[in-house]
Amino acid sequence: MPAMSPVRTAIIGLGYWGPNVLRNFAAQGECAMVLACDRDAARRERLERQYPSVRFTADAEEIFTDASIELVLIATPTGTHAPLARRALEAGKHVFVEKPLAATVAEAEELVALAKKQKKLLFVDHTFAFAPAVEKLASLAGSQSLGDLLCFDSARLNLGLLQRDANVIEDLAVHDLSILSAIVPLETAQTVLAVGFTHFGKQIEEAHMHLTFPRGFHAHIHVSWLSPVKVRRTLLTGAKAMVLYDDAEPSEKIRVYDKGVERDAAKPDPFFPKYRSGDVVIPALATVETLSAEAQHVLRCVHGEEKPRVSGEAGLAVLRILDAANRSIASGSPVAL
Amino acid sequence: MPAMSPVRTAIIGLGYWGPNVLRNFAAQGECAMVLACDRDAARRERLERQYPSVRFTADAEEIFTDASIELVLIATPTGTHAPLARRALEAGKHVFVEKPLAATVAEAEELVALAKKQKKLLFVDHTFAFAPAVEKLASLAGSQSLGDLLCFDSARLNLGLLQRDANVIEDLAVHDLSILSAIVPLETAQTVLAVGFTHFGKQIEEAHMHLTFPRGFHAHIHVSWLSPVKVRRTLLTGAKAMVLYDDAEPSEKIRVYDKGVERDAAKPDPFFPKYRSGDVVIPALATVETLSAEAQHVLRCVHGEEKPRVSGEAGLAVLRILDAANRSIASGSPVAL
Amino acid sequence: MPAMSPVRTAIIGLGYWGPNVLRNFAAQGECAMVLACDRDAARRERLERQYPSVRFTADAEEIFTDASIELVLIATPTGTHAPLARRALEAGKHVFVEKPLAATVAEAEELVALAKKQKKLLFVDHTFAFAPAVEKLASLAGSQSLGDLLCFDSARLNLGLLQRDANVIEDLAVHDLSILSAIVPLETAQTVLAVGFTHFGKQIEEAHMHLTFPRGFHAHIHVSWLSPVKVRRTLLTGAKAMVLYDDAEPSEKIRVYDKGVERDAAKPDPFFPKYRSGDVVIPALATVETLSAEAQHVLRCVHGEEKPRVSGEAGLAVLRILDAANRSIASGSPVAL
Amino acid sequence: MPAMSPVRTAIIGLGYWGPNVLRNFAAQGECAMVLACDRDAARRERLERQYPSVRFTADAEEIFTDASIELVLIATPTGTHAPLARRALEAGKHVFVEKPLAATVAEAEELVALAKKQKKLLFVDHTFAFAPAVEKLASLAGSQSLGDLLCFDSARLNLGLLQRDANVIEDLAVHDLSILSAIVPLETAQTVLAVGFTHFGKQIEEAHMHLTFPRGFHAHIHVSWLSPVKVRRTLLTGAKAMVLYDDAEPSEKIRVYDKGVERDAAKPDPFFPKYRSGDVVIPALATVETLSAEAQHVLRCVHGEEKPRVSGEAGLAVLRILDAANRSIASGSPVAL
Repeated sequence: MPAMSPVRTAIIGLGYWGPNVLRNFAAQGECAMVLACDRDAARRERLERQYPSVRFTADAEEIFTDASIELVLIATPTGTHAPLARRALEAGKHVFVEKPLAATVAEAEELVALAKKQKKLLFVDHTFAFAPAVEKLASLAGSQSLGDLLCFDSARLNLGLLQRDANVIEDLAVHDLSILSAIVPLETAQTVLAVGFTHFGKQIEEAHMHLTFPRGFHAHIHVSWLSPVKVRRTLLTGAKAMVLYDDAEPSEKIRVYDKGVERDAAKPDPFFPKYRSGDVVIPALATVETLSAEAQHVLRCVHGEEKPRVSGEAGLAVLRILDAANRSIASGSPVAL
Repeated sequence: MPAMSPVRTAIIGLGYWGPNVLRNFAAQGECAMVLACDRDAARRERLERQYPSVRFTADAEEIFTDASIELVLIATPTGTHAPLARRALEAGKHVFVEKPLAATVAEAEELVALAKKQKKLLFVDHTFAFAPAVEKLASLAGSQSLGDLLCFDSARLNLGLLQRDANVIEDLAVHDLSILSAIVPLETAQTVLAVGFTHFGKQIEEAHMHLTFPRGFHAHIHVSWLSPVKVRRTLLTGAKAMVLYDDAEPSEKIRVYDKGVERDAAKPDPFFPKYRSGDVVIPALATVETLSAEAQHVLRCVHGEEKPRVSGEAGLAVLRILDAANRSIASGSPVAL
Repeated sequence: MPAMSPVRTAIIGLGYWGPNVLRNFAAQGECAMVLACDRDAARRERLERQYPSVRFTADAEEIFTDASIELVLIATPTGTHAPLARRALEAGKHVFVEKPLAATVAEAEELVALAKKQKKLLFVDHTFAFAPAVEKLASLAGSQSLGDLLCFDSARLNLGLLQRDANVIEDLAVHDLSILSAIVPLETAQTVLAVGFTHFGKQIEEAHMHLTFPRGFHAHIHVSWLSPVKVRRTLLTGAKAMVLYDDAEPSEKIRVYDKGVERDAAKPDPFFPKYRSGDVVIPALATVETLSAEAQHVLRCVHGEEKPRVSGEAGLAVLRILDAANRSIASGSPVAL
Repeated sequence: MPAMSPVRTAIIGLGYWGPNVLRNFAAQGECAMVLACDRDAARRERLERQYPSVRFTADAEEIFTDASIELVLIATPTGTHAPLARRALEAGKHVFVEKPLAATVAEAEELVALAKKQKKLLFVDHTFAFAPAVEKLASLAGSQSLGDLLCFDSARLNLGLLQRDANVIEDLAVHDLSILSAIVPLETAQTVLAVGFTHFGKQIEEAHMHLTFPRGFHAHIHVSWLSPVKVRRTLLTGAKAMVLYDDAEPSEKIRVYDKGVERDAAKPDPFFPKYRSGDVVIPALATVETLSAEAQHVLRCVHGEEKPRVSGEAGLAVLRILDAANRSIASGSPVAL
């Protein structure tokens, strides 16, 4: 392979998550981190010592007007995602945005359209999709070893800090949707039915979402800030086998149950399926840092070596589903997508 | 306590479950089992040797016309529950019926009204309610040690035989409703929202039910015949503590998590609750046979020593909920009770 | 296969365990159970109704003098094993004896020699060796998939009834030795080192045994009557993989860890081994009743269709090891076998 | 409490573990870290930026000759522990030494005697003793809630890097001895019996140690570098209850089983004990960093506010036990302490 020059990259937003993004992109050989922007001087100073080769600035325009910069990473508060991403795309840069892609569905739609028009890549940071356990789940789902996919059931429960600005679906279900997006394109979701409950504050603190997809596949996502027990469990059931992904397990995160029920081709009556029962396998997982794997993937996409796994469309689909879920909770009925 | 004479008892139906009912009632000192009825001669013969003091008959009328019999146990197919129970109540007997109480809500309503009119006890066999783990769950729920009850979440998943005559809700969710009925009166349920899925046969094979109750308490019940992994898990979340009941655990079925979130009386803003974190306790459970405990309870109720824990009203409430769930699946919207 | 006539079989001893032996042998098509003997009339009567085709007697001599009987099952108290087995072998019968084979090593040696001289089969009831989990363990050990076997480590701990007539090694370690015998011939054990402790009664209530075998293989067995927690755990470590057998698990009894350390043939220095890390597999196990599988095996051995898996030699080896363990505890030093 | 001036502290050795010691002591308000010594310039430079107020030097004599320094932390290779600690004690300083205290029992004896003569505190770094789980274990052991202590059983198994300079006992069992020292004074150990095995290299790679103590208490420690499965499990059995400490559990590290066997005072025959069975409790544990808690304790001891929990005597006792274990492996017999 002919050596490709490193992707000249800039980052905007150095608050809570930004420094992690900076560190993981900067550590890749395929990346040349040239500019980092935050209005807060203290944040910049803390990082300047660690990254002597990066220039720090308070003014994002320096990034947009630097024609040499190819990729812009945006890790600012949600409300600024759309204006900053729009500006970067207009300036002809590829863009990687923290989730959620934008504050509203309309903004996200505009960004997706703009990226298409500008022929630039638009990524949303769905870190979970790059976790080794999720990659294993996705590769099993795609390998036909599970048979027809029947359902996806995910619970993300803990004793979480109640939030003022987001409800529990916006806070937590987005992770389950990231995992789900590694199995089925979220754009194909057909309906959303959601129920939600408020016990202490003003936001929804516990909720269930039911999603339907073509060919009978459906998903259930249960999220809560009120569960004393921390649960991070996803079950993917196929006709031939089932995968349990338990993120609370320190090492044995994925279990594949090689048993299931199948249509028996020899018998016309669907009432008499075949039952299979086999081993349980706990596959060894890679031990890469998730955000590092994601950064590498993004850089390779910019180089044209890989195709984006989590595009702006996925980020838009997530926003549409969250929006539909909120409307379903309000109306008590399913919402078509 | 003055000695009471044993309750003169008869049983109708000696098929799959009837012999268990017979054995457990007959073993109680408070019971005099005098008559057992089944139309199938082979079934009668098998049991005659084991119960030499019981008279066996093919004709249920012998039971109804025997004025000395006080209690009739009915373990026949569902379609015959209502006519047999009606006949027994009319004949002035207490009645214990296998679940479901009747084939339709209307029949069940009639039985409940008739029992009231006749001033006789009408029991439905909710065996689960007498399991030591469920009794512990109920006693914790009633003790205020959990704080305000927030939600009940139960999953009953396995690779089950598909059935022709019942869907998965009728087959499995009835057990979760039995457990729930030990915590909250099912008659107080306000709405049911259900979703269901069919993959292989013609019946619903996987379903979710959402129930709402007064004061924000809500329940979620997930049942499936298509899960390779057997799950029997109920979580009861209170504001102060949570109970996990895992019936698949051989010995540690109940875990009490002494942590939760509470309204902080000192702060008017509900956004700042108090978080508590404490021990996990796995209580030692009694090791009684569940059906034996239930038989003893029924006999003591007939003797006036205890009050019925699972009355006809509970059986009726279960049927109303199952009926509403089926209507909700058909309509896609919540059904008021 | 040409049909073979069923093995004409008799049993002596119908106390605690005998009825199980009777039931499992009688249920095999390859067995014709003709005589059953116990001095206790009540025990005989209880079983006579269930086995109308079996003749019951109080006199064991009827068995020995019935030339048509080929196989004698002995389930009497330990002290009578040797005289009854001797008499049966002298009468030209195959013999299946409950463990332990005899009360002393000398008696057991005599029985083994006598069986050889009479050319009859002598079996000891090591039921555990026929458990599906142990058969899986043995088959893995024999398949080279574990690499060189390094060590066997077994713990059998519970809150057990203290016994007057046996110490904890004689009571419990015999099961671990049964399991071990499925992996390595017990006759090849070289040394035994044991330590034991007495806290409440007069017998050893907790003990450790260390056994050495050729080629560096060694075994550690830990038994206790004083553990509040029930432990039934055996680890078999090979250079290439390890098997964990947890008999307290309801379904996932065997776990195979496909990782280990190996000599690296490419490097002469043994200090630099190769490390391998792979999946964990929980194999599906057969669901046969263990004693039934053992009965079938014994009958097939009598028919010459299988070779005895647990011969008198194994029973003798167990007694020699238990005897050496007791001497090691007394002396504080290893005892050579 | 009158404010005390911070303890003027120096550290020698900034290799693998030293920086952790430096960081944790420096972070305490009770500590004034003034000097840090390592011969390696690169190590010093790395840390100089982070600790601008600490002076770095290549010459340990600067520490010994600075009369203002009260406490010296030694984190150098084992062979240098004794000479450096001796020099520091002679210079009138309190000393905190990484484990092992010294390379030989004789050296350790000399240090303990010297500290006594100089009236200075000598600490050995048994970090494990300050882990919240071990503190809970120790507090349960000391509270009489377990009843008479019967035995301690600890396993520390993993697929470890074989070492050239230490065997598996010296590498791993020292941690189990640290835990044991929190329960019983190691100085009271009476005998050591050990067995060890070598499969790949030249050092003992797997070993068992049996220790006896007064009043029938005994300990078993099992360590291995050859186990594919990582095990970190300690069981402490008392007559009335048992504690299981599983350090591989992410959160539920301690389980207290409230059941056991007791002498029944009402019955003279020790053969009839009483059995108790109760709940299992998983206590909430503090979430402090272990090394930070240890640093705080050491500083408070220097201030006279606490008494040393892990003194030089404990470090000496560990060395004596390891030495005896090695001799026992060589001789095959128990070694008296």
